[in-house]
Amino acid sequence: MDSIDERLIAEGVTLPDAPAPAANYVPFVKTGNLVFVSGQLPMVDGECRYLGRLGDDVDLEEGVKAARLCAINILAQVKAACDGDLSRVTRVVRLGGFVASTPEFEQHPTVINGASDLMAAVFGEAGAHARAAVGVAALPRGVSVEVEGLFEVSE
Amino acid sequence: MDSIDERLIAEGVTLPDAPAPAANYVPFVKTGNLVFVSGQLPMVDGECRYLGRLGDDVDLEEGVKAARLCAINILAQVKAACDGDLSRVTRVVRLGGFVASTPEFEQHPTVINGASDLMAAVFGEAGAHARAAVGVAALPRGVSVEVEGLFEVSE
Amino acid sequence: MDSIDERLIAEGVTLPDAPAPAANYVPFVKTGNLVFVSGQLPMVDGECRYLGRLGDDVDLEEGVKAARLCAINILAQVKAACDGDLSRVTRVVRLGGFVASTPEFEQHPTVINGASDLMAAVFGEAGAHARAAVGVAALPRGVSVEVEGLFEVSE
Repeated sequence: MDSIDERLIAEGVTLPDAPAPAANYVPFVKTGNLVFVSGQLPMVDGECRYLGRLGDDVDLEEGVKAARLCAINILAQVKAACDGDLSRVTRVVRLGGFVASTPEFEQHPTVINGASDLMAAVFGEAGAHARAAVGVAALPRGVSVEVEGLFEVSE
Repeated sequence: MDSIDERLIAEGVTLPDAPAPAANYVPFVKTGNLVFVSGQLPMVDGECRYLGRLGDDVDLEEGVKAARLCAINILAQVKAACDGDLSRVTRVVRLGGFVASTPEFEQHPTVINGASDLMAAVFGEAGAHARAAVGVAALPRGVSVEVEGLFEVSE
Repeated sequence: MDSIDERLIAEGVTLPDAPAPAANYVPFVKTGNLVFVSGQLPMVDGECRYLGRLGDDVDLEEGVKAARLCAINILAQVKAACDGDLSRVTRVVRLGGFVASTPEFEQHPTVINGASDLMAAVFGEAGAHARAAVGVAALPRGVSVEVEGLFEVSE
């Protein structure tokens, strides 16, 4: 079995440094063997991508890419929570996927698959998670997708 | 005290088979003694019911029925997580209720009571749960209600 | 270090009595050392404040006050969960912030800072939490903000 770092390379993913907290909340909190990761945006080098709404000015393919980008930023935070060692993740427990969409849009699950598929590619069976995917009115900074995560980790 | 199976019969509820996963996420994940259940839709025999939005083309009574149907599908997943024995549920911890609604609609709690009331009917005191109920822009497949769940279970 | 009660006084906060449950759900559930607090509204003496939507009839400053009011009501529930002793809170784990907003509004994080900043003021380092902030179509009773919470507590 390939290592997690090798799988990330195979996915063409370079994890960014986990950004420092910007306010009175933090990117992740560990309680017991659970790590709660704050809602992540589709951000690259501090710049938000894929602005707008699904069903309007963001198409399905872009939405999937936005969700994948959120997932990459989640992984960067989980890696920091595990002191740099993602093999300490024993299970991806839950992803919460928020898609900015028009009232008529119906394909929120397909969008959030962009995040779910990356978890499966990186963690294999341990990447299979519970999930909620919903369509919201708007998201911070005008992005189209926000994803939060919950992980089970070992010491 | 009636058994949980007898209470389900009294409620006129027949639990469906827990549907198999359709993508890189799963209907539930168990971590420690917690079971996280993915957002469930008001689906019967693979077909979604109660399409539309509260405040528009779905009325309050239909919304309550939609939430109850989501809760039935949650129970089907929890039953699978407990190897068929719902008496292993020691507490319904949390329900997350998402109601597709117009900006003017205000009765989201009444809608989600359709799910909460079933938990109370089935589990009694152990069915009293924390809850969030919010109004979203849209939901997968155009349904009016989605509910996710968190349960505490014994071995 | 000031006691938590002294910090609440310094913030000008008087915690209300924790309201009794109104339906088949409850304001909080404790499982293990985690306390899940139901979504709280910006309510004072049983009356909802700051009705409307951000980006429309509620301005940013009012939204921040609404989020702070939700956080005060969360603290009242956590205090009840800790038998009146907030020093038993070992960590604020997560806040879920829902902001009723127009599709054009982008400053949901600033709004929810009204809740996050109170947690930091009251709990210090233990108040630093994971967070999701999203913009929803509508909220119960027409309020502009709803916040739910998750806390780690000691016996």
